[in-house]
Amino acid sequence: MSKSLKIVIAVIICLAIGYGSGIATQSSITTWYPTLNKPFFNPPNWLFAPVWTILYVMMGVSAGLVWSKMEVIPLLVKKALWVFAIQLILNALWSFLFFGMCNPFLAFIEILLLWLMILETVKLFKPIDPLANKLLIPYLLWVSFATLLNGAIWWLNS
Amino acid sequence: MSKSLKIVIAVIICLAIGYGSGIATQSSITTWYPTLNKPFFNPPNWLFAPVWTILYVMMGVSAGLVWSKMEVIPLLVKKALWVFAIQLILNALWSFLFFGMCNPFLAFIEILLLWLMILETVKLFKPIDPLANKLLIPYLLWVSFATLLNGAIWWLNS
Repeated sequence: MSKSLKIVIAVIICLAIGYGSGIATQSSITTWYPTLNKPFFNPPNWLFAPVWTILYVMMGVSAGLVWSKMEVIPLLVKKALWVFAIQLILNALWSFLFFGMCNPFLAFIEILLLWLMILETVKLFKPIDPLANKLLIPYLLWVSFATLLNGAIWWLNS
Repeated sequence: MSKSLKIVIAVIICLAIGYGSGIATQSSITTWYPTLNKPFFNPPNWLFAPVWTILYVMMGVSAGLVWSKMEVIPLLVKKALWVFAIQLILNALWSFLFFGMCNPFLAFIEILLLWLMILETVKLFKPIDPLANKLLIPYLLWVSFATLLNGAIWWLNS
């Protein structure tokens, strides 16, 4: 399989999981979420969809680049893609806990784990493909901010 | 589908996921794990397999009992089984993080989330079936102990 095809497949998987978890939890975004107290640094709602779309695309390109090294260093690539897959599932689980279960506390503990798993992915991608590593940095930074936001929302509503 | 068949299916799923996660990580149990410093309350190694087998069976019976109420209170049962499924996946993920990635710190953050998700499951099962609720208490207690053990192992080896 060509490198570009691997990148396209990985981007589609990331976008599908991202939008899937979004759709599953959409109802409470319009009902429960507006009733919560937000911190002063809460961004406007319209910002989340474009930011996440860009991040999922970068994530997919990153995973596709790593996947294209499978023939060269199979063991490192397999381990890295396993950890990548876990962080992607944890990413979807966050939406379920926060919006689906309306439980900012559970979501906060979960996002700490997600952040650590993204950091592991970043570390594992570095020796495989430097660009794949850099493409995940905006994602790590955004989830750092999301962790703060989640923590603040839990605090302000508990 | 009869109540007993639902219980049997749920027990098989729980045992399969439990043993699956065990097999995937077996190599480091004999290589990496014996090299770690353990706390004084570390139980003998032979204890883990029978304890987990009993706990997975109880977990399966519990989920089967809840599943058998699907026709009566579908919304409550669906939500409870979703949360149950998530805690089961987190249970398997713990083995991957601790034994697969040899990372007691990541595993510790993850087991905190697992503990909270088991607690949510226990709460959601209670109004559906009191026996299903009670069958999860030993599991919650064992994971409380496992959390302590994981935390101590991380501390003693960091």
